[in-house]
Amino acid sequence: MPSLNILIAQGGGPTAVINQSLAGVVFAAHHSGVIDRVVGARHGVRGILNEDLVDLSCETAVHLEAVARTPGSALGSTRDKPDLAYCKEMLKVLKAHEIGHFYYIGGNDSADTVRIVSEQARESAYSLRCIHIPKTIDNDLVGNDHTPGFPSAARFVVQAFVGANLDNASLPGVYVAVVMGRHAGFLTAASALARKFPDDGPHLIYVPERTFEPERFVADVRTVHERLGRCVVAVSEGVHDAAGVPIISKLAPAAERDPHGNVQLSGTGALADLLCAQIRDRLGIKRVRGETFGYLQRSFAGCVSDVDQREAFEVGERAVRFALSADRDGSVSIKRVGHYAVDYELAPLETVAAQTRVMEEHLIDAGGTDVTDAFRAYLQPLLGSGLPEADRLRAAAVPKRLKAR
Amino acid sequence: MPSLNILIAQGGGPTAVINQSLAGVVFAAHHSGVIDRVVGARHGVRGILNEDLVDLSCETAVHLEAVARTPGSALGSTRDKPDLAYCKEMLKVLKAHEIGHFYYIGGNDSADTVRIVSEQARESAYSLRCIHIPKTIDNDLVGNDHTPGFPSAARFVVQAFVGANLDNASLPGVYVAVVMGRHAGFLTAASALARKFPDDGPHLIYVPERTFEPERFVADVRTVHERLGRCVVAVSEGVHDAAGVPIISKLAPAAERDPHGNVQLSGTGALADLLCAQIRDRLGIKRVRGETFGYLQRSFAGCVSDVDQREAFEVGERAVRFALSADRDGSVSIKRVGHYAVDYELAPLETVAAQTRVMEEHLIDAGGTDVTDAFRAYLQPLLGSGLPEADRLRAAAVPKRLKAR
Repeated sequence: MPSLNILIAQGGGPTAVINQSLAGVVFAAHHSGVIDRVVGARHGVRGILNEDLVDLSCETAVHLEAVARTPGSALGSTRDKPDLAYCKEMLKVLKAHEIGHFYYIGGNDSADTVRIVSEQARESAYSLRCIHIPKTIDNDLVGNDHTPGFPSAARFVVQAFVGANLDNASLPGVYVAVVMGRHAGFLTAASALARKFPDDGPHLIYVPERTFEPERFVADVRTVHERLGRCVVAVSEGVHDAAGVPIISKLAPAAERDPHGNVQLSGTGALADLLCAQIRDRLGIKRVRGETFGYLQRSFAGCVSDVDQREAFEVGERAVRFALSADRDGSVSIKRVGHYAVDYELAPLETVAAQTRVMEEHLIDAGGTDVTDAFRAYLQPLLGSGLPEADRLRAAAVPKRLKAR
Repeated sequence: MPSLNILIAQGGGPTAVINQSLAGVVFAAHHSGVIDRVVGARHGVRGILNEDLVDLSCETAVHLEAVARTPGSALGSTRDKPDLAYCKEMLKVLKAHEIGHFYYIGGNDSADTVRIVSEQARESAYSLRCIHIPKTIDNDLVGNDHTPGFPSAARFVVQAFVGANLDNASLPGVYVAVVMGRHAGFLTAASALARKFPDDGPHLIYVPERTFEPERFVADVRTVHERLGRCVVAVSEGVHDAAGVPIISKLAPAAERDPHGNVQLSGTGALADLLCAQIRDRLGIKRVRGETFGYLQRSFAGCVSDVDQREAFEVGERAVRFALSADRDGSVSIKRVGHYAVDYELAPLETVAAQTRVMEEHLIDAGGTDVTDAFRAYLQPLLGSGLPEADRLRAAAVPKRLKAR
């Protein structure tokens, strides 16, 4: 009889495929032959602290597959960022339940939590294998070609901009959509893959890797609007001025902050409305519409990249394999091989924890409001199969009979 | 050689399937054997006025099918609401191009335009068959069981709320999403079909058919939040006070108005932000997030009800059949037959034009914040096949070992 117990939890913002990773761990554990019980913690590290645990070993495969296809964090999530004392309390619970492996699915904050728990376990001579499983729609984990959750969110952004461009072409004006991404512009940049014809939008893309200058923004919109009679803009929620102050903070200085001290950027339409007001007031354009894609980007049911789905499951499986075979803790990371395949490595936790990857320079166009071909080549294989394609009429003009006279 | 020329245009807000209706007209025209040329007007009635016309007869079937699958108005649209003088100018162009049939795809405003053109043609003894083809995501055309465009938009709302509910369950708090629909609550009510388990959201649904009382709204949210520890709310953009004043106007008295005198409700996140501020200030709940689905509801590429797609094409085909066989002008309307099929009738233009259907009383729950089973039975067959389904873990709790001591 195997006697190894493992614990898994989900942290940070949910994604469309985070439950694939959960399922990947449970399946791999069952198939390992050496793991007795898979324990899930409700609402991330908070569930460990509160001993709010469930027994995932009794879930059927059929049911687990259905959960894997469901967006959101099936175990519940948390924004808690444990400090040393918190981690020590967690360790007591892990010990009490004789947990041998700790798996945490999350972003760079979650990786940092795994790092602290790993250190504390070692210091107290408690034998605990700690594995971080990557997840974030922001694609901002260092050492990863990309992170599970990002491809599906990117697909949502592409499908949204395909539609937004067509809507804007139907009823011309200026359209500004705010896309998630506090420090990294990957998701906003994904909007570029919505274009098919040369005059398709988004015509301007603003990522947080570049300083956002309101004056230049207005001038950029004017230029496009004068050329095409319309303009579609993608703006990252994290755009900031030269001093690094988020543009949204300038509008709402009392903006809400999360436990990590970050200003609340999502769950409000303020930034889009502010930018639209600028255009309306400064350019006198009548039809100006602003939108914030918000949580739909990470949770919309039925917009998933099949590549992402497969990889998210596999990082879960790989985590268990690494835990059983490697002699160290770490973070599962995705490496790209050729055009297009991936392989997985176990990176040291400190190389991922609390670090933030941003878009590499060669992915952003020199002008600062577009992406490069390198970015398009990077993203295309991640979007998955069956992307909807837009088309337009080719009908020739009918010669005028009245106005020509 | 046939010598009948017909003209088609698209008006008002685009939908995911409005190009199906365009394609339906063109295909039916080709198959009729009596129609020579299909002329399209760019940007609705404005294209007629400006003689901005294209020859759709030369489009290939393969290409037209690709366009039909594309959201947005392929011919371009307009918000122009022609008056008598405008219609008389249009008639001159129709005469100059020897147009025998005028087809206008649009909502109740477009139906009214068709009515005026029809009257003017008759008065000037110009033989013109005028047919209105229904389209609106608001589902507010009288005499129709439902309107093309609504089922796909409803499907978007359902998929969005399936995800929003899961996201909110992952990271509990209050989530408020504003849904399109100025006078009719059908689209907001569609959110109810996102629920699977008894505690799934949306937990509160506010439609414009009921007076919106901010006091009661806050109390409703408090009740749900105390019971579940979270709350998901669907609010129609058109909610108003007892005097009929839109709630958004109270926030932004200088709100933009369209040529029809309507306050701009879409393309701004103001209403969601206002409602969230109420909850945050009055209930002291920390995690409160507001979103506005906006234009994604009508244009998101890749979220289409196959039932809607089929029917939208068929209303276009039917329009041509009616035009060729009936001895009067009219509006193609959809009638429901059994569970579930549809048939089409040609309704008098004046019964549809400039009228607004709202949700029938028996579709709204007595409490005023939910729908009835009758509404669920009404909407379910329209959503189409292959809706994503959510599932959740069933894992049993692990007995506490520390806290229980």
